[in-house]
Amino acid sequence: MRVLGIDTSLRSTGVAVVESRGTALAAVEYDTLRIPAAASLSECLRRLADGIGETIGRTAPDAVAIEGVFYCKNVKTAIVLGEARGAVIAACTARAVPVYEYEPRRIKQALVGFGGAEKAQVRMMAMRLLGLDVEPQEDAGDALALAICHLHGSTVHEVLRRKPI
Amino acid sequence: MRVLGIDTSLRSTGVAVVESRGTALAAVEYDTLRIPAAASLSECLRRLADGIGETIGRTAPDAVAIEGVFYCKNVKTAIVLGEARGAVIAACTARAVPVYEYEPRRIKQALVGFGGAEKAQVRMMAMRLLGLDVEPQEDAGDALALAICHLHGSTVHEVLRRKPI
Repeated sequence: MRVLGIDTSLRSTGVAVVESRGTALAAVEYDTLRIPAAASLSECLRRLADGIGETIGRTAPDAVAIEGVFYCKNVKTAIVLGEARGAVIAACTARAVPVYEYEPRRIKQALVGFGGAEKAQVRMMAMRLLGLDVEPQEDAGDALALAICHLHGSTVHEVLRRKPI
Repeated sequence: MRVLGIDTSLRSTGVAVVESRGTALAAVEYDTLRIPAAASLSECLRRLADGIGETIGRTAPDAVAIEGVFYCKNVKTAIVLGEARGAVIAACTARAVPVYEYEPRRIKQALVGFGGAEKAQVRMMAMRLLGLDVEPQEDAGDALALAICHLHGSTVHEVLRRKPI
């Protein structure tokens, strides 16, 4: 099973594909989709949608995992994050890949075993689980953690309970 | 010149195409893209993006006009509205149609001549300018007003100042 984790933002989105091979996990690819500050909103959204579309075309994931948003500094920030999410989710759904959402606490719990863990600890654990020697860029690392979270500890019971957004 | 006005929301989006013919305006088509309450978020975003894509393919607008958001009840509402906007803007930009944003006050000013006008007054004026006999559904009416706002009183100076988002 292959999962595409996406740590969404307008100008620096982590994109990572992780595969389960028996009981082991392997990183297929991971990168950060950076869009220059000079790019307009619509240009950012187009590049984000295209980038995700290309990754799906290249890696054929079975599912996408994104982070649930439950807090934002203000309405303006929430609108912009929502716009990036909308472009990403629409790009996945147009290619018939189901999208699952995980709360930050759930991701930390899955990787570190403790919902209050630091983000750096989570990324470190993602590295260890995937056998990576070099620490990935922050957003790419968060995307790896998201993908692992979806694959991690999936008992049949738990998988059946999951519902795409 | 043809303008596609979009009054964006997740489950009831007004979509209207207005054309300037000399000094007159004509409605090419207008409708409300309704998505059932039972549809999931990703299903809504897919149908929204597809619907806008089909309208662009059918009517070939020169520009898209959407409403700027400067207020939202709370972060949750802002995220959802942002998601709908993201799917819509990405769909327009993928088809190389520039998207322009107008503040609610600017739309009211353009149609009624008064930024504090009621929404019903704005829709009534849209009907009058387009010679419509029957009042359109609310969201479709707001979309007509958005398209008219983009076409209305466009001096060369003003058009040159406009910048797509």
